[in-house]
Amino acid sequence: MTKLLDTMEQPGDLKKLSFNELENLANEVRELLIHTVAKTGGHLAPNLGVVELTIAIHRVFDSPRDKIVWDVGHQAYVHKLLTGRRARFETLRQLGGLSGFPKRSESEHDVFGTGHSSTSISAALGMALARDLLGKKYHVVAVIGDGSLTGGQAYEALNHAGHMGSNLTVILNDNEMSIAKNVGAMSQYLARMRTAPTYSRVKHDIEYLLRRIPAIGDSVAKTAERVKDSLKYLLVPGVIFEELGFTYIGPIDGHNIASLVDVLQKSQNVRGPVLIHVLTQKGKGYRPAECNADKFHGVGPFCVETGEIIKNGANPTYTAVFGDALVELAEKDDRIIAITAAMPEGTGLKKFAARFPTRFFDVGIAEQHAVTLAAGMATQGLRPVVAIYSTFLQRAYDQIVHDVCLQNLPVVFALDRAGIVGEDGPTHHGAFDLSFLRHIPNMVIMAPKDENELRHMLYTAHELNCPVAIRYPRGSGTGVTLDKAFSRLEVGKAEIIRQGGRLAFLALGAMVGPCLEAAAILEKHGIKASVINARFAKPFDAALIRALARDTGMLVTVEDNVLAGGFGSAVLEYINSQNLQWVKLLRLGLPDAFVEHGTRQELLARHGLDGAGIAAAVQDFIHKYGVR
Amino acid sequence: MTKLLDTMEQPGDLKKLSFNELENLANEVRELLIHTVAKTGGHLAPNLGVVELTIAIHRVFDSPRDKIVWDVGHQAYVHKLLTGRRARFETLRQLGGLSGFPKRSESEHDVFGTGHSSTSISAALGMALARDLLGKKYHVVAVIGDGSLTGGQAYEALNHAGHMGSNLTVILNDNEMSIAKNVGAMSQYLARMRTAPTYSRVKHDIEYLLRRIPAIGDSVAKTAERVKDSLKYLLVPGVIFEELGFTYIGPIDGHNIASLVDVLQKSQNVRGPVLIHVLTQKGKGYRPAECNADKFHGVGPFCVETGEIIKNGANPTYTAVFGDALVELAEKDDRIIAITAAMPEGTGLKKFAARFPTRFFDVGIAEQHAVTLAAGMATQGLRPVVAIYSTFLQRAYDQIVHDVCLQNLPVVFALDRAGIVGEDGPTHHGAFDLSFLRHIPNMVIMAPKDENELRHMLYTAHELNCPVAIRYPRGSGTGVTLDKAFSRLEVGKAEIIRQGGRLAFLALGAMVGPCLEAAAILEKHGIKASVINARFAKPFDAALIRALARDTGMLVTVEDNVLAGGFGSAVLEYINSQNLQWVKLLRLGLPDAFVEHGTRQELLARHGLDGAGIAAAVQDFIHKYGVR
Ligand SMILES: [Mg+2]
Ligand SMILES: [Mg+2]
Repeated sequence: MTKLLDTMEQPGDLKKLSFNELENLANEVRELLIHTVAKTGGHLAPNLGVVELTIAIHRVFDSPRDKIVWDVGHQAYVHKLLTGRRARFETLRQLGGLSGFPKRSESEHDVFGTGHSSTSISAALGMALARDLLGKKYHVVAVIGDGSLTGGQAYEALNHAGHMGSNLTVILNDNEMSIAKNVGAMSQYLARMRTAPTYSRVKHDIEYLLRRIPAIGDSVAKTAERVKDSLKYLLVPGVIFEELGFTYIGPIDGHNIASLVDVLQKSQNVRGPVLIHVLTQKGKGYRPAECNADKFHGVGPFCVETGEIIKNGANPTYTAVFGDALVELAEKDDRIIAITAAMPEGTGLKKFAARFPTRFFDVGIAEQHAVTLAAGMATQGLRPVVAIYSTFLQRAYDQIVHDVCLQNLPVVFALDRAGIVGEDGPTHHGAFDLSFLRHIPNMVIMAPKDENELRHMLYTAHELNCPVAIRYPRGSGTGVTLDKAFSRLEVGKAEIIRQGGRLAFLALGAMVGPCLEAAAILEKHGIKASVINARFAKPFDAALIRALARDTGMLVTVEDNVLAGGFGSAVLEYINSQNLQWVKLLRLGLPDAFVEHGTRQELLARHGLDGAGIAAAVQDFIHKYGVR
Repeated sequence: MTKLLDTMEQPGDLKKLSFNELENLANEVRELLIHTVAKTGGHLAPNLGVVELTIAIHRVFDSPRDKIVWDVGHQAYVHKLLTGRRARFETLRQLGGLSGFPKRSESEHDVFGTGHSSTSISAALGMALARDLLGKKYHVVAVIGDGSLTGGQAYEALNHAGHMGSNLTVILNDNEMSIAKNVGAMSQYLARMRTAPTYSRVKHDIEYLLRRIPAIGDSVAKTAERVKDSLKYLLVPGVIFEELGFTYIGPIDGHNIASLVDVLQKSQNVRGPVLIHVLTQKGKGYRPAECNADKFHGVGPFCVETGEIIKNGANPTYTAVFGDALVELAEKDDRIIAITAAMPEGTGLKKFAARFPTRFFDVGIAEQHAVTLAAGMATQGLRPVVAIYSTFLQRAYDQIVHDVCLQNLPVVFALDRAGIVGEDGPTHHGAFDLSFLRHIPNMVIMAPKDENELRHMLYTAHELNCPVAIRYPRGSGTGVTLDKAFSRLEVGKAEIIRQGGRLAFLALGAMVGPCLEAAAILEKHGIKASVINARFAKPFDAALIRALARDTGMLVTVEDNVLAGGFGSAVLEYINSQNLQWVKLLRLGLPDAFVEHGTRQELLARHGLDGAGIAAAVQDFIHKYGVR
């Protein structure tokens, strides 16, 4: 089925194939992508869109001598297949298997690891400048989507690259959408270029027009006026890029290997930075993905024939519960605004967008702007809710400090995908949010034990008049019944779920479940334990900690966040500041290392954060140190 | 001397003045700015540049009904003078006095606090969208410099604003420089607009040209070709902004109040977002500042007559010692690269830039790009040193995590202005860096006790093959003799400076001096104390902490960083993880609150981080809890 592909050991092998064979290779790659991702899950539509482009790149450039940087990187599957990783492709995104993103430790062809958006031009420019300084000769290519171009860092890099003038190829993979329908003036600008006649055609027209201008005063002037008006949008496609110092080439059909190869070859002779505008179709070649590229952007296992997603877990996701709850709250309070950074589906805001289109803002992949925009709105009496994955909110850390918390503005941050996200791996785990948010003054941080509590936390956050972050995990909830009415939680008050024994778990958010399991396991071994649902990481329940320190011999904090500076650290700081150190404190969480990819359950188990692992850690601790 | 100004209670009072009187007012404002900043220090040149612009804005708009957002905000002194703060102006930047930046709590005219760059359009757009949703009618104005336009967030906001189409006025205050000479293709683009004939003039020329075209084939075509080439840069000034959905107006003389007022009034009738391109001269009206705007950007007290800075402290600054040391190292290793984000002077890189112009990169106010650029360079074998103030590095947190540390690349971060910076206040203190860097895997963090140790730390960082951050304070060093030779410090090893007693200070960086003072004070009260120079916040000296825990009764960590998640927290986590909690640990540092402005010494004292404060805290602790 993949006869040609199986003979491709190194990208150089592509040079032996005819264009006809390259077309066949593209078909084989597509088949393999569809059938593999149907089993493993993954980013199908983006990869189907770049099959021909990737083949053309590796046909023309000479990786790893030439450096190819894939922005975001979820579209690098084809690149992996063509760079010696065909045999391991079935292990994609699985524990110990191939990463779903470029990864330097995986292959010399992955020259720069990506995962977050809009970094590729910066990294590629760094390589190009290094090449020039070291007196080497090779090409550097950044492949960036139109969506990633909405991220400010991409503009910072374009601006610098245009200024430097080093040789650098930026391939703009324009599929008229990022993950969701694209937004922003830049995207409208690109759309105009897609529909505008090509440069050479316009040039021809204008020459023709000028030749026919009658040599009489007023009429000439009027014609010039008309020409001038049309010139602005027609004469120089890519004028923005040209103005920024790039040579613009395009737009090019991104599914025609011969013309891609031709343009890429010619671009190698251009001096200075080049931007090649390539038009591709997301999901190309697989009908269900062509029709619904959004659904097949990042997808779980599905049926190849029907395109139907194979459901796992009947419980509603945290994401969906959040989305529904926000719509409910927004029905009653029209100050509520929802803001997403290009993730209306992923963050559960689609319903909100449909119900309140004027109160919904998708700002593109622009987390920094999203946060300061929300701060601006909050100054005028609105109540913005900014829904961004934990890992992507890292990009707005400064804006959270400087624009929201310093001014103590009522902005609610909904951090989906907090903790271990699973198969997307180290670039996507929400492993740091408790640590990077907790030390910011004025910030309130909550984490729900289940999807029902998420509803009450969202309501509570909305009732407060200060910055609030709610972090919750990826995937299905616990299946608990959802309360109809919202209730306001007392800020900084924990919930005692299970009481008894000389040992108490302080579990944060998604760790409540595993702690209950651990308590059950320990009980079988004769160790009775309380389980506290901490609810608040900041301010936490100081009174309860004092009481527990008095009444029990041992506290165990459990969090799916790095231990350094996290929730356990907060409890520890309190115990220290109150001189309560007679109570033993065991802190469980993620290590001081980047966590690899695998299923969420596998990774939690590997890091001792499932019920068995938590119970074992406690037994080990008691064995070593005893408990009062 | 400020007769007119003294009558200005509210900005509305400006409407009563004739243009002639407004010119006189401008002169009064300038005089007052020069004489006040000569005493208080502050951002003189930026404010001298916007005197007429600020008068025109407040003449046309109706603050606080209309919302005026000042990007960066160091140019808001004139705004403060015209909005009821004339009488308090002498208290500028002093403890308890007026802030050097817009501050919501200070005045209803300060609608959005700023300090960091490139946030104004986001905030202003948030206000404009809020206005539209709430059915209100007012104008929203963002005033942003050409330098701030190099920050990616400004582009994210322009892109979104152009897409939304809400009424919004962006005033581009173009003085051909940010803090230093401007960089980037965008700045070259603006320069072309400055020198290009104005729109109407070009339009006239082209009409004239077309009228005279002889109606013969080839020649016409050639002419069209020529026209086309020139059109690209001449025909549509502001085409980038126009393409992004803004109506571009300009360039306008920013020192002509009448024409500014005229343009601002007209702009109120434009539908959708408007960008007004205003040309100003930094330092305008004060010869020393006109000649050296860089020196007078942010300046200490100076002599009005001569423009000479009044020196305080003969010791070389940490900044200067860093800059010299980097040049020395770079002489021996040509892999060393220096990167700054628009702060070549402030970060001490001017000498490096002069000595190694091809190895020096000023990327504009683009911290995110700076960090990923360095990561890209590091993959190719270079050794980039990224010099950014602690507070501004907050903006690159995600890039540090995702691009540098995840890939464990050898990038050195030189964090100047760590800890309390003083008069610039809460937006500028480097109060969080230990907390936001310490939890990132693979990161090594150092802090020197003096400027000589900074040299060795820079050398050590360069010798390591991983991400390293060195944090050091603003201002003069201790005046210690500088070693000629560099020596490599052992990673994770502290230095015992003073030994003895049952109490040990673990002091980080700039806190070593105050701890020595505290130890001397305590000795007078019969309490002997060791003083340890921690040197490394990560990895810290675990062996020494074990030994101290064994041999002493009490450890005192001292850091000029928030306590949450900081250095003391790291020591505490270790003590906890090793079950050493019999040793008493007192953690001293900054509170969970934003620290105001004042002199560095005043603020350290206020927060108990001078020698007396530290000694008092220790005595208090011993009094309460005793020591073993
Ligand atoms: Mg796209
Ligand atoms: Mg400027």
